[in-house]
Amino acid sequence: MPHLLHIDSSPRSDRSHTRGLTADFVQSWQVNHPNSTVTYRDIGRSPLPHVTEEWIAAAFTPPNERSQAMQDALRLSNELIDELLIADVIVAGIPFYNFGMPSGFKAYIDQIVRIGRTFLFNPDNEESPYTPLIHGKRMIAVISRGDSGYGSGGRNEKNNHLDPHLRTVFRFIGVTDLEIIAAENDEHGGAALVNSLESARRNILRLAAEDQPQKGDLAPLTRTRRSTKSQLIPDGRQG
Amino acid sequence: MPHLLHIDSSPRSDRSHTRGLTADFVQSWQVNHPNSTVTYRDIGRSPLPHVTEEWIAAAFTPPNERSQAMQDALRLSNELIDELLIADVIVAGIPFYNFGMPSGFKAYIDQIVRIGRTFLFNPDNEESPYTPLIHGKRMIAVISRGDSGYGSGGRNEKNNHLDPHLRTVFRFIGVTDLEIIAAENDEHGGAALVNSLESARRNILRLAAEDQPQKGDLAPLTRTRRSTKSQLIPDGRQG
Repeated sequence: MPHLLHIDSSPRSDRSHTRGLTADFVQSWQVNHPNSTVTYRDIGRSPLPHVTEEWIAAAFTPPNERSQAMQDALRLSNELIDELLIADVIVAGIPFYNFGMPSGFKAYIDQIVRIGRTFLFNPDNEESPYTPLIHGKRMIAVISRGDSGYGSGGRNEKNNHLDPHLRTVFRFIGVTDLEIIAAENDEHGGAALVNSLESARRNILRLAAEDQPQKGDLAPLTRTRRSTKSQLIPDGRQG
Repeated sequence: MPHLLHIDSSPRSDRSHTRGLTADFVQSWQVNHPNSTVTYRDIGRSPLPHVTEEWIAAAFTPPNERSQAMQDALRLSNELIDELLIADVIVAGIPFYNFGMPSGFKAYIDQIVRIGRTFLFNPDNEESPYTPLIHGKRMIAVISRGDSGYGSGGRNEKNNHLDPHLRTVFRFIGVTDLEIIAAENDEHGGAALVNSLESARRNILRLAAEDQPQKGDLAPLTRTRRSTKSQLIPDGRQG
């Protein structure tokens, strides 16, 4: 019984292309996985706060030494991380704002990349001080861009600071199976936009119909589920 | 009488390296430019909101057609843009969070990159639909990173999604003279951190002592000042 985490981060409602595309994914995924469950997190309409000094101090304090205020500072982060860890598949709608992710999605990343929960830090290991704590997830990022040419080999590829950033930061916590589907031309409209949306939708429906992740680095969903549960228990060591 | 905009974006107070370094810049800059003025904007301790659907709708509505609610949605953005346009030099402290800028600084960017105020959009000009509206500024970005090797040629350069993003987005609105000064090794501490901070400080004091921007694409400060003032008048055309 695979579990899907559905995230939307566009501040727009009806006019959002990413919302339409993630909704298409979820609908098709549920048809293809009749016994599945879905959690929905809308950080576009219910924005997340930026991390604070209290948050940082709490995150770097060992769990059993945290004051009540420190625990409160991490409550939302814990909720978001728990939600991520129990998912087998994550679909996230992310509009391309000013050449990168919107501040609201960066706030999500700053909340979920956390020492002892999604990665470990061991400064004594000079070769490899960071260890990811997430394993066996598949993620699909659904992106909408106003202009075009930001894909591989495109005229704007070097100005795309969203796709490579997503790959780096999710790989850092262990989400290595990341598919990126992009629609372009929102600012130009017309046939270019329609064609791009149709192409994105086809790719999304193809991914939603897949029985299980195809990448070699990903365990079958049943094993994934067990391994994520065991990660929920310890809060891990602190650097 | 040059004018400096001093921005801090670290959520940390005393423990922030970027705050220490931007303060060093400002102090030295004031000594070297006795008739100068400074505006301080602390988006670390007074965080900015993410842009909303109302903000986007208002930004894409021609100024003379905006309702009172639309004007309210853009009030903070206008304040931040006015502040940016009257500055000759900008120094911004930006901690490196999860391989990019913190969500709080991205919120700043999402507020100041605005059609009709910091760039123009003309979809009929297929070759070059975007025109920057800012000219003649110098910007110094002061960055602190937990790990090391993110500079040019370093082992982590490809995981640095802050420096290239800053260059792209500020160039888009016309801030082409961008110096990036980085301190590294915050997470490792010791001599590596101390040496990196000292090197950053030396570079900052050198930049603060410069009489005027050295880059060829930057007009003298007196001319700069006049040109920025003229930009404050129209709210520009809308795409």
